[in-house]
This record gives sequence, structure tokens and C-alpha cells, in this order.
Amino acid sequence: MGVTPKFVYLFREGSSKMRDLLGGKGAGLAEMTRLGLPVPPGFTITTAACNHFSSRGRFPPGLTSQIAAALKRVEAQSKRRLGDPKNPLLVSVRSGAKFSMPGMMDTVLNIGLNDEVVEVLARSSGNERFVWDAYRRLLQMFGRIVRDIDPHRFEAVLDRWKAKTAGGKDTDLTAHDLRAIVGEFKGVFEDERKEFPQEPREQLIEAIKAVFESWNGKRAVDYRNFHKIPHDLGTAANVQTMVFGNLGDDSGTGVVFTRDPATGEKGLYGEYLANAQGEDVVAGIRTPLKVGQLRERTPKIYRQLDAFAKKLERHYRDLQDIEFTVEAGKLWILQTRSGKRTARAAVKVAVDMADEKMIPRDEAVRRVEPAHVIQLLMPRFDEAAKAAAHRDGRYLAKGLNASPGAATGTVVFDPDEAQRMGRDEKKPVILVRVETSPDDVHGMLWSKGILTTRGGATSHASVVARGLGLPCIVGAESIRVDYADASFSAGEVIVRRGDAISIDGTTGEVFVGRIPTIDPDFKGEKELLTILSWADGVRRLEVWANADYPRDARRAREFGAQGVGLCRTEHMFFEEDRLPIVQRMILAGTERERQEALDKLLPIQRGDFAGIFEAMGGLPVVIRLIDPPLHEFLPKYEDLLVEATELRIAGKDPERLAEVERLLKAVAAMREQNPMLGLRGCRLGIMFPGVTEMQVRAIFEAAADLKRAGESPHPEIMIPLVGHVNELRVERESLERVAKQVMTEKGVKVDYKFGTMIEVPRGALTAGEIAKYAEFFSFGTNDLTQMTFGYSRDDAEGKFLMAYVERGILPVNPFQVLDRAGVGELMRVAVERGRKTRPDLKVGICGEHGGDPESIAFCHEIGLKYVSCSPFRVPVARIAAAHAALRAKAGPKGTD
Amino acid sequence: MGVTPKFVYLFREGSSKMRDLLGGKGAGLAEMTRLGLPVPPGFTITTAACNHFSSRGRFPPGLTSQIAAALKRVEAQSKRRLGDPKNPLLVSVRSGAKFSMPGMMDTVLNIGLNDEVVEVLARSSGNERFVWDAYRRLLQMFGRIVRDIDPHRFEAVLDRWKAKTAGGKDTDLTAHDLRAIVGEFKGVFEDERKEFPQEPREQLIEAIKAVFESWNGKRAVDYRNFHKIPHDLGTAANVQTMVFGNLGDDSGTGVVFTRDPATGEKGLYGEYLANAQGEDVVAGIRTPLKVGQLRERTPKIYRQLDAFAKKLERHYRDLQDIEFTVEAGKLWILQTRSGKRTARAAVKVAVDMADEKMIPRDEAVRRVEPAHVIQLLMPRFDEAAKAAAHRDGRYLAKGLNASPGAATGTVVFDPDEAQRMGRDEKKPVILVRVETSPDDVHGMLWSKGILTTRGGATSHASVVARGLGLPCIVGAESIRVDYADASFSAGEVIVRRGDAISIDGTTGEVFVGRIPTIDPDFKGEKELLTILSWADGVRRLEVWANADYPRDARRAREFGAQGVGLCRTEHMFFEEDRLPIVQRMILAGTERERQEALDKLLPIQRGDFAGIFEAMGGLPVVIRLIDPPLHEFLPKYEDLLVEATELRIAGKDPERLAEVERLLKAVAAMREQNPMLGLRGCRLGIMFPGVTEMQVRAIFEAAADLKRAGESPHPEIMIPLVGHVNELRVERESLERVAKQVMTEKGVKVDYKFGTMIEVPRGALTAGEIAKYAEFFSFGTNDLTQMTFGYSRDDAEGKFLMAYVERGILPVNPFQVLDRAGVGELMRVAVERGRKTRPDLKVGICGEHGGDPESIAFCHEIGLKYVSCSPFRVPVARIAAAHAALRAKAGPKGTD
Repeated sequence: MGVTPKFVYLFREGSSKMRDLLGGKGAGLAEMTRLGLPVPPGFTITTAACNHFSSRGRFPPGLTSQIAAALKRVEAQSKRRLGDPKNPLLVSVRSGAKFSMPGMMDTVLNIGLNDEVVEVLARSSGNERFVWDAYRRLLQMFGRIVRDIDPHRFEAVLDRWKAKTAGGKDTDLTAHDLRAIVGEFKGVFEDERKEFPQEPREQLIEAIKAVFESWNGKRAVDYRNFHKIPHDLGTAANVQTMVFGNLGDDSGTGVVFTRDPATGEKGLYGEYLANAQGEDVVAGIRTPLKVGQLRERTPKIYRQLDAFAKKLERHYRDLQDIEFTVEAGKLWILQTRSGKRTARAAVKVAVDMADEKMIPRDEAVRRVEPAHVIQLLMPRFDEAAKAAAHRDGRYLAKGLNASPGAATGTVVFDPDEAQRMGRDEKKPVILVRVETSPDDVHGMLWSKGILTTRGGATSHASVVARGLGLPCIVGAESIRVDYADASFSAGEVIVRRGDAISIDGTTGEVFVGRIPTIDPDFKGEKELLTILSWADGVRRLEVWANADYPRDARRAREFGAQGVGLCRTEHMFFEEDRLPIVQRMILAGTERERQEALDKLLPIQRGDFAGIFEAMGGLPVVIRLIDPPLHEFLPKYEDLLVEATELRIAGKDPERLAEVERLLKAVAAMREQNPMLGLRGCRLGIMFPGVTEMQVRAIFEAAADLKRAGESPHPEIMIPLVGHVNELRVERESLERVAKQVMTEKGVKVDYKFGTMIEVPRGALTAGEIAKYAEFFSFGTNDLTQMTFGYSRDDAEGKFLMAYVERGILPVNPFQVLDRAGVGELMRVAVERGRKTRPDLKVGICGEHGGDPESIAFCHEIGLKYVSCSPFRVPVARIAAAHAALRAKAGPKGTD
Repeated sequence: MGVTPKFVYLFREGSSKMRDLLGGKGAGLAEMTRLGLPVPPGFTITTAACNHFSSRGRFPPGLTSQIAAALKRVEAQSKRRLGDPKNPLLVSVRSGAKFSMPGMMDTVLNIGLNDEVVEVLARSSGNERFVWDAYRRLLQMFGRIVRDIDPHRFEAVLDRWKAKTAGGKDTDLTAHDLRAIVGEFKGVFEDERKEFPQEPREQLIEAIKAVFESWNGKRAVDYRNFHKIPHDLGTAANVQTMVFGNLGDDSGTGVVFTRDPATGEKGLYGEYLANAQGEDVVAGIRTPLKVGQLRERTPKIYRQLDAFAKKLERHYRDLQDIEFTVEAGKLWILQTRSGKRTARAAVKVAVDMADEKMIPRDEAVRRVEPAHVIQLLMPRFDEAAKAAAHRDGRYLAKGLNASPGAATGTVVFDPDEAQRMGRDEKKPVILVRVETSPDDVHGMLWSKGILTTRGGATSHASVVARGLGLPCIVGAESIRVDYADASFSAGEVIVRRGDAISIDGTTGEVFVGRIPTIDPDFKGEKELLTILSWADGVRRLEVWANADYPRDARRAREFGAQGVGLCRTEHMFFEEDRLPIVQRMILAGTERERQEALDKLLPIQRGDFAGIFEAMGGLPVVIRLIDPPLHEFLPKYEDLLVEATELRIAGKDPERLAEVERLLKAVAAMREQNPMLGLRGCRLGIMFPGVTEMQVRAIFEAAADLKRAGESPHPEIMIPLVGHVNELRVERESLERVAKQVMTEKGVKVDYKFGTMIEVPRGALTAGEIAKYAEFFSFGTNDLTQMTFGYSRDDAEGKFLMAYVERGILPVNPFQVLDRAGVGELMRVAVERGRKTRPDLKVGICGEHGGDPESIAFCHEIGLKYVSCSPFRVPVARIAAAHAALRAKAGPKGTD
């Protein structure tokens, strides 16, 4: 047998580097102790001890005596002794794992009290009520946490006693009442045949064991599963001397941030409640002071607090969230941690700290999450209007803030109706459901926001809404939905189908009526612009945008796009004034009719392209030739079928019937079983060269005209859906011929490239061949994901994909976050093989993943040149690309 | 400068090993010379000389003098001299490449004749007519081949002269006529401003150059492209002493096979025409003698011929096709080559030669092509009935035999009608078209055979028909189709839509009326059974069969299947008596209704499985759980839509309307945009576990009952469409639970396996993960091809795939021949990764490619354990698997 390992560390023996062993809380207490801050003395029992306990069901040998030894040191330091009725030491026991797990934290306070100590202390302390209250809290916590007694049993006793008082609140209970309550609490223990140990050391050991056990409790396991925290880390247990903020008016407790967590403004920000314990602050019984007011009341304490806060912020180089207690005029610091903050504060704090030289700019960039950028660019409520809604009593309920952003709209309960109103009537609707299921997705797609009364952060509604970028609140449990009545109630208020509500997905608040939303002002976000410019200096990936119209291209450039990575030419075909011409082209009976229609489309497309080239100045514009199957441009088969049947029966309009039947026949001939895998992409261009030739002519005529006018357009022609090198070869050969012809006609040379989308698995696998004819690749990861998984997105998301994600069959929706193992491998292979054939091959991505931070990181890893995303996502992508570069620089360890 | 290479080889200097240099014909002549056969002396100019000529446009240095030297040797041997009027040597010049290229072979005969030689020879030979005829042939061939004069110009002269004779035939022309014709032929040369050289040596050199030039002629290039022969091989030119079979009654010419090429029976088989040249045999002017009759007429010649034939067959160890000429009582052998033979002969010859120890059994196996096996197992015409049809004048025309097999059916010209009659009315139809296009495929699918009047072996009709295994004749140019009249004419005969015709795709013959077809008798094919048993001894790949019903399983076993590789359970659901129950199950409003329907299906499925297990004895049976989307089992949406519209307008049957609308709603909810990529495969099992659990219960109840009855069933449960390991994990866990429960209930252990199809690209890429939960993989290459290429087969084949193949964008239809570069790579990766995780992983293939010889070879190469194909393909696969093993044994060189 070797030496017994060290399982117990006094706070002064540890440091912030020992998170693995001491947990986050223990390491923090140790670090603060080392910094010389007034931390109530105590010690930490390591995660290693916990893991031993978890696997063997008992303490490791030597732990009990190590605890006893540490306790003796703490007793010496505080000059009190556990269980000594004259001068008793009271301690708390708290869990604390390596990563913060808010749902799990178990705490037992006031250990050390027992019948004897309480009696003596009640007499000697001069604060009998405080002592009995402390004992009743110990009994209550010990019962719940250590003995697993239903907490309602204790609350029921308390409620009964409170009901007897005048005020009906905790504070209205007298020492006498509390003493009686203690008696009844003991009765609960007996009733449950569970023991409350009178021996303080036994209380301590039992509490430590309970903390260890909580590591494998259901709540904790679920939390770790969701946050992907390994189950074998274990939790530490912290034993710390109690300090009391409720010993009188020179006592109190508070929370302070080193900067404003909402705005990021510098200066202490927080609250202080005199003569109170932490719990009381949470209970909101009395209105706390702003921390600024403390300065006037007790300047010394304030000065101390300010100095400690500055010290901690400088030490941790981040905004700190500090808990403190004043016990009879003495300031104790109980905890510090990185403060949670809004997106706005995150950006401002990062920029300010970099300007203050507290952190390097790289670190400032690293601290602004893509989610922060998303949030700053989301519509939000006008703050004044929201405050007014609160004042007017229009606040209804609060739920879990499952997906950020503000939305206001008409209440709808039925997803079909949501779809109808949202899609067909273009009305903003908020879909309200008890919970959602795959059957509701078609309605969610057309809603402005989602509100459910059940479910948590991983519920179907949450997952879908985050995916769609829709504001969403889930688990608003105070709301009762009555589908039959098409209404919901929140307290007294009843909201009916058709009424307006407003939801703030960022905070979880629900209001009745409309609250005006404010669109983000990108150019006004000075700190964001600063961070983005720093990010631009860090990243290697370029960020381009998908833009089909000049207005999109202009917006993309404002947001910092360095090119257009995808201009979908067919979207132009769908516009109202063009569709009839497109239909004439498709249905043409003769070559001449077809050519006439194409001749009409040519100047229109030329104008489209000219607009985009102009908007992008000299930046590259990747134009994808027509992609969707032609039947998408025709009336729907089913509609024609019904009309034909009706006309046939009515027998009144033979001309229209003939026309409809002609159309029906044409559409029937073009219909496909699986249009996603049918006659589309380059297959169209090969089978019906007229359209793509017209498109290429339009592109080059527009570019040549601009070139002659002194501009420098850079068209890059992208041929979609290539799976075999020969497809690209024949398309490129015939189209480049058109391009050269136009340039000869116009007497001007345009810089251009020909390339292809890689969106078919075979295209990726044979990229080495394909690169012979492609000057660039652009990954179409939407289609590539569809084909690699064999999922039709239209069908899958509604019918099974969400269920897969909910059930953990898939970790995420692969249409949102790029699947590294499957789709990603094909991309990696394509990049390698393509570059082997053509070392200067330009490779980018233009699928939706181009705007997803995790996917952008992957694109960086495999060495793409650019990501292209929707214009609004460009700033997000700029940050994400910088993060990817920083992570790569940090090396394989990553930055935690 | 080094030594001039040797460009000219006398026949006696070469051998059969020098095919690269001397071409097939030259090497053959050399080999026969070496064997001591009476070959007219001559020499060969090498392919190297041709290649020099092709690239530089002139003979290599030294060639002319090498030709002169060789010619001198030949003159010495034959004791004649080129251009010597007294004793002139006449020679032929023939092309001859390494690989036989029938379309290309250019020949100039009778070189050495000129005005002077002819005059002298006509007088001295005593056969004036023969001499003038020879001269006119030289002029005609030289004009066409060397001088590129339109051959019709010569034919027109000949026709005019023939018309003047009594008989109107070649043979009716007198010496006088021929002399006049020679004069007119010279006029044609003058008219065309082209020279006919009187100098024999110049004739010779020009003819050699023309042969070299023909290598790059359009016909030759097309032929090589189609047969994938490299363009840089070049052709040799053979210069050979002329011998004449038309010098009188002791002369003649013939062709003889060493065995009957139709049946494979031993003994000389062939034809002999006295006093004739080879051309005359082809022209069919006189009926030739059977070679047997020669025995009686000139026993000495016959004995010589028989001895030479035996010698050649023994030497080449294959059935020989020998050309010979008797010149004034002396036998000359002009050519020998492997004889073309029918499938039946190929099999019999291979078996006989192995039995005669002429070749080893491996070689016998190698000589039987999968196509031979296909042909022997195709329906064919009753020979007597076909002969009767010939006698009755029902023979109509001959076209190109594009796809083998016999078919008889009703003539249809419109593909829509073919589809309607074939699919809906189940009538056998023959689709007759001028040519076919992708628009016709839907009709071809439902026809029994295809006949076109245009197109060749690579035409759309040929490609599609071979793919579908349909008898097909193309390019029947003597037939005129009149679509407007819905009829076709062949000579005097007019065949109308609705009339019956019969086509023999193996021979290219078209008949009017029905000819009874004979189904093949596998068990009666003794030699085939022998070859297959030898093949079984050679191959490593097992051959399994796809069988959905007990009758299929029994047939598969008869054909030699070693297991069932794919039993599609859903086909059972489509049977008439079951479909209503399946529909009730799908449309069930409550869990109870659904369960009731499932309970009804259980015993039915159990019976299905029991039948298959019994049929297969102890062999493994891989059962794939339900795969297609559920809406496939419901009425079609469009049909319901029309019915609902009609009922709504009629307003008479509100009950039926309500019913139809209910169905319509249910079907609408289940419809998918791309059902191939929707809710099917394991996704169904995960979302609606009831069906798959019922199926697994049925499988294990059936197996357990049989096991208790002393049988040893081996079910292998196959989960389809797995793309992520978790899909397989959850499915397997829940289904294996059912399996174990059934075995517990029945108190018996069944040997079983759980595995998966690999048919989604992601499944292949992540096979290492998937193998953790799979005991076997089976490649579903139909779906894998669909997803890897992004082709929906239903849409692609009709709309663009055939056009791709015709235009050479794809080398073959990847649904017929496995695509090695894309789909194949995914398979290779899956095998490697799967076996890395689970070294004893059993891997097979059950897509249609499992019956395609080229694809089978690939499966052998990547180390699969078995291929599974349709029962009829099992014998083909057995041979193909043996070939793959032999090829692998022969090493990377292959076997030519």
C-alpha cells in the first residue's frame, strides 16, 4: 500500500489551476484566499474522493481523518469549535464541479447546530430568533438534501405557521414560532423514519456524502448529457465557515458585478440587502439597495468592496459576478465568477478591456460569441415600449428563453392555421401550443414566434425554433392552454385566438398586445464594428454572401461580404412579370417559340446581373446557372387536375378545358417522383442548352458593358449538380464558347472563371477528375447533406428529423450544423483531390452551413478559401471565422 | 542514327506471339507458315511502320527498300515476278490490326496487273475472261480504297453492262464485256482526275499507304471508340501472293469450322464452292457444297483439309474458322481464327475440349461468357416453328441483333399505348419505332421486345433494351414505318397496329405472326451444368439470390443459390388479400385499431417466412424489414383528388365523399416531395415500431416452430437505409428484445444475425461505427447509386440517363454496371472500415448489380463474401464469379 492520497485541501493550499481536483467553486475560493481576500475559512474535498465514493459506495480510506484534521485547522483559524455550545463553529457544505452545473448545486447550511448548541446559543447570542431560524433552516435542508424527504412536508409546516401571523411572511415568525416549527420539523423526520443526527461531525460527514451522491442524481446526469460534460469528472465538496448577513443592521448580503452586465458600462453594479441572508435576496421580500447607495451608508465597506472587485477583475481579466456578506461590520467575499452578460455587454466589455490593455485583442475577439452577434442583429423590443407594457400590466408570464429575439403577432393554436395565415395571408402569427411535435413543423415554419407551456431547452419547440432562428419561449407553466376554446389564460387574463401577443425570446417574457420591435442598426453598433474589424485581422477564411438581387448584394457588402458566393439565377425567373415568359419558354411547341421566349428573358437577366456586378464593385460574383426542375415554374399538377375535372363535369367552357388539359399533359410529362434527384442542375443545361446559353450570354453582355464603362466585374460561372467530370466538361465547353463569342462581339475581355458546385456525393469522390475542368469548387452542403444522409429536407424535418434530434439519434440537425463524419469527410476528400489536380483551385461553401459557427470552424480546418452565407449572417461568420483561426493557432489543445 | 528497325517480316519470320507488331492476321499467317501449312507466301509490314506513317505522313526511312527486298524473296519462292508479263506475280494487300476490326478491314486484290500484263496473260493463260475480270476487280478496289472514288460510280457501269446480258448477273458477263468495262473504269479514274498507276510496284506502295491511312478513317475510329481499343496501336499491312479458286473445276474456295459453330458438335463443318473466289461465296450466286460432300468429290483435298484443321485446332486449342482455296488442285490455307459460335456451342466446345484434355477446366470456364449463360436461359423460338415460318414466307426482314432472346406480341407504335397495354392490360406487345428516344422509355419498359428501323449497336434502343434484358432488333432498314397509318411495310407485306409479329433478338430476324417460344430447361442443359460445377470449384464469391416468396426461393436453389440475400418483406404486403389489412393498420385512428391490424398480419407474415425457411433448408435467409414509405400502400393521391372533386360536384353520395375526403387527408399528410429520401427504411421502424416488431416476431415465431420441428432455419434480420450508427443501435436493441422474447416463449434458440444494408452514402462512410452493431453488411447498390449520383432512377432513366450514355457523358448506365469510381469507392471504404471494427463482418451485395458480371468482378476484388441476385441470374453470377477469381489468379496482367 502506498501513501494515502491527499483528498482534502485547505482553501489556502489550492489555486485556480486546480479546477480538475477542487472543482470550479473550490478552486475559486482557494484563489481568492491566495489573493488575500477575506474569504471565510474552509476546505475542499476533491473530485477524486467523489469518484472513489461513486464507484465504491464509500469514502476512500483516510478521508475521514483528513477531514478531521482540516476541520481542526479551520477551528483554530476561526477560534470556534464544531459542536461547542459556548463558541460553536457553523459550516456549510456545497457541491462544486469542474464546470458550473446550476441545476445540480446542493447546499447544506448551518451544520454544527443541534438541540444543545441552539439552546445555549439562543440564550448567549442575544438574537434568539436568528438562532432558531438557523436551526430550522438546517433541519429543512438536511431533510431535503441528505435524507431525501419531500420538501413540501417542511414547507407545509412553515406555511401553516406563517398563515397564523399578521403579515404571513417568513419575517413575521417569532423566535417562539420558530422553536415550535423546529419541533414539528423533527416530527417530520420521525414520521419519515429518518434520523437527524445531533452529532455535528456526523451532520458534516452525511452532508458531504449527500453532495457526492448528487453527482449521479437524475437532474445532474440530464444536465451533463445536454451540455456534453463527461460523467466521470465527479464533484468536489466545499466545507466553509458560515458567515451571517442577518445578525442586525450592521450585517447584510449582496451581489456585485464589476461592470454593468446589461450594458457593459464600467463601474460596480449590484444590490445589497441589509440584515439578510442570500436566500432573502432571492425571495425578493424587501427591495434591496443599489450598490451605489452602499457608498453613502457604509463608505468603508464600499471602498473595500470596490478594491476587492477591481483586484478580482484584474486577476481574472473578466467581468466578475461577486457574492459578499457583511457580518457585524466585517466584509466577507463568498464567491466570484465570470459574470453572465447580455450580448451588448459582452461586446462592450471585450472592446473596453482590450482598450484598457487588460486583454489582448485576440482575446477580446474570442470572448464575443457568434450568438452574441446574432442577438445584436435580431429585432428586439423598443425598451421604452416594453417598460410601458410592464407598467400597464400587460406582462403575462415568464417561460424559458429558448431562442432569442422579439416577436409580436396574432395568437394561433392550430399549425394548419398558422401556415395558412403566415404563408397565404402574410400575417405575423405567434403559434401557441402546450408542446410541439413533428406534426406542427409546417405551422412553425410560417410563424413569427413560438410559445409553449411545457418543455425545456431541449424540447422539440426549442430545437426547431433555434434552427429556424425564430424567437421562442417554452415551459411557460403559468399559462393554461384550452384548445377547445381556442384560448389561453394566464392568471386572470384570457387571450383568445386572433388576439395579439408579444414574446421576448431573449428574456422569456410574454405580454398581451403588440409591442413595437426595433430593427438592429448595424452601423450604429460601434463596439461590434470594432470587434468585427479585429476579427477580420485574425481570420484566414474570407466571408462572402449569398445574394440573388442587387439589394441583397448591397446589404451583404455593408455587412462586410468580400464577394457573392451564390447568386441563384432562377429566383429571378419566379418574379411576377417574368414567370409567364419562363412558362412560354418551357411549354414552347417549336424551337422558334422557345427562342422567342429566351430572347425576351435575355435583357431582363442581363439587367439583373448588371445590378449585382455594380453593387459588388470589383469583387467576385459567383453565378449559379439554372438549377431547379422546370416543372417548378409551371402550375401545380394537382391544381390543374382538379380544375380539369371540374371543367369536364361542368361542360361549359370547352376552350378553357382544352387549355387546362394541354397544360396538364405538359406538366404530367415533366413531373418527377423525386424531383430533388431528377432533371435539374447541369442535367437541364445539357438536355436543354437554350436556357443556360441565354444565361451565360446575359452574364457576359452585362459584364462586358460594365467593363467598357470602366468597371471591373468578376463573374464566376458555377455549374450545379455535377456528379461526373464529363457533365462539367460538355457544359463548360459549350458555355465558354458563348462567353468568348460575346466578348468578341463586344470587343472586350472580361475576367471570369468557370467552376462547379460540389453537392453530389459522387462529385466529391471524383473531385480529382472534376478539377480538370473547374477553376473553383463551391460546396452546396444543403444538397450534399440531403444525398449523403438520404434525407429529403422537405420531408425529413417534419416527419422524423426533429424526433431523431430529440431522441439523441442524431446529435444535431445536420442541415444546421455540418455533419463532420459523413458530409465533412466528403468535403475533405474533395478538397484534397481537387487541389492535387489543380493546386490553385479556389474552394468555398455556399450551403446554409456557411453561416453556422461550428460549420465555419470545420471549413477553416479543411482549408477552404471562403464561406458564403446569407447577408445577415455575414457578421456572425466574420466572428466565427476569427474564432476558428484563433482555435487553430492555440493548437490541438483548444482553449477549453 | 542507329540501325534502321525491321519493318518488314516474311511470314516465315513471324509467329503468333508477334500480334503487337504484325497484327492478328499477320501473326496468324506467320504462325500457319511456321506450322508447315500451305500458306501463299508473303510478308507483313509492321504496325510500327503504320504509326510512323500516321504521325509523319510518310513511310519511315528504309521501309521502301525493305519491302523491295521482301518482295524479291517472295518472287523467288513463287518463281514469278511482279509486273513480268510472262510470268506475273499477283499479290493482295490487306490490313490487319492487333484486335479484329471487322468494319475496317481494307483489301486490294490482284495487284500486279496492268494493261501490258493483262494483254499477255489473257492470251497465254487460256482463260481470258478470268484475266479481264481480275483486272476489273483491281481497278474497282484500287479506285475505292486507294483513290477514294465513290464505289457507286463503278457499280453503275457494272450494272449497266449486266443489264445488257441475258442472265443479268456477274457471271453472265463475257471476256469481251469485261474488257469494255475495264475501259470504262479507266474512264471513271480520268473523270475523277485520279491516276491508276500502271507500274505494279507503285500499285503496291500506294495500296500499303491506303491501308495505313484507313487506320484513322472515321469507321475505324468509331469502331475503336465503341470497343475501347486504343487509337495508338496502328494496323499492319499484309502482302500475299494471290491464289485463285476460279481457275476451273479443279479450283474452288471454302470456309470450314473445326466443329459445328451452332451446336458445338465435333467434326468439320463448312461450305465449298467450286470454281469461285471468296466473294462469290458471299454473293450467294450458287449453292455451295457442304464440306462433307467434298470428301466424296476430292478425298485427297478433304483429307488434307481435315488434317490441317485438326492441327490448327490442336495448336490454337480452340474451335477454328478456316478459309481455304484450291487452285488447280492445290490446297492453300488462307486464314484461321477462333470461330464465332452460339452460346450452346461455346458451352459444349468448352466442356468437350476440357474432356479431351485439350484445355484445362479453368480455361473451359473462362471461355463461357456470362452472356452465353444469359442466352441459354432466355426464351427462344421453337426451331421447328421458326423453320416453318421461314417456309411459309413469314420471314419479313433482318436487322442488327442488338439484344438476345425471342419475343412474340402485338405490334404497337406508340409508347403510351405500349405502356397501357403492357402494364394495364397485361398484353405482350412489341414496340416498333423508327428509332427510340428517352421519351419512349416508359413504353419500352412494358414491352416484350423492341424493333427499330434505324440505329446501331450503340443506339438508344439497343442500350435500353440490353439494360432491360429485352429482345431487341435495331436498324432493320428494309422496314418502312408509317406512324400516321399505324403500320409498317416490309417489301410487299404490310403489318398494322394490333397484328402479331415475332422477333429473334439473337439473330436479328423479324417474322409476321406468332412463333411459339420455348422456355429454357436449365436441368436439361448438361454441358452448362458441368461448366457451372467447374465454375463453382473456382470461385471464391458465394452466389445468393433475392427471393420474396417461397417459389422464388425454390427456383433460386435449383439454380444453385447458396442463400437468400434479400427477402423484401413489403412485397408480401401488396398481395390482394393483405393490402386492406395493411391499409387499416396505416390509417388506424387509435393504437388499438393499429394493433388489431398488426395482429392480423402476424400469422400471414409468419407463414410467408416459414415457407422461405423451408425452401432454403439450413441456408441463410436475409430478411429486410419494411422499407418503402407507407403511402405506397394507400390509394394514389391524384386518384382520390379526382374522385373527391367529382363527388363534391355531383353531390349525391355524401357518405362516400366523407370517406374519400378522410382518405385524401390521410394520404396528403403522408405524401412526400421526394419519397425516396423520406420516411422509409429504418426511419419507419424507429418512428412506428409496431410494424417492424410484428415482422421480427413473425420471423422468430416461424423460425422457432421450424427449429422445434427439427429444421435449422437461419434468419438474418436486415435493417434498411441506415445512415447513422444510432439508427441501427436503437432499432437493433428494440428488435432483438422482441426476438429474445419470442425465443423465450417458444423455449428454443434460433441461430440469427442482425445486420444492415449499406445503401446511404453516409452509411458507407461511417461503416466503422455502424459495424459495432451489425454482424453483416449488404450493399444496396440501387439506392447507393441513386444517392451517390443524385439520380432518382424512376426519373433519370427516362429523362436524361439514356441520353447521357448515348452521348458518352456516362460510359454505361450505372444502374446496370456498378460505377467503380464513385459508388465503388464508397463500397471499398465501407468494407475496409467495417472489417476494421469487426474482422468477421459478413459483407455481400443485394442490389441489381449482384447479377451483372462486371459488377461481380468488382465485388470479388473488394473482398465481398457473396453477391445476391435474382434467381434467374444465379447461373450467370456463378460463371462471372469464377471469371473474377480466375482473373485475380492470373494477376494484374489479366488474360488479354
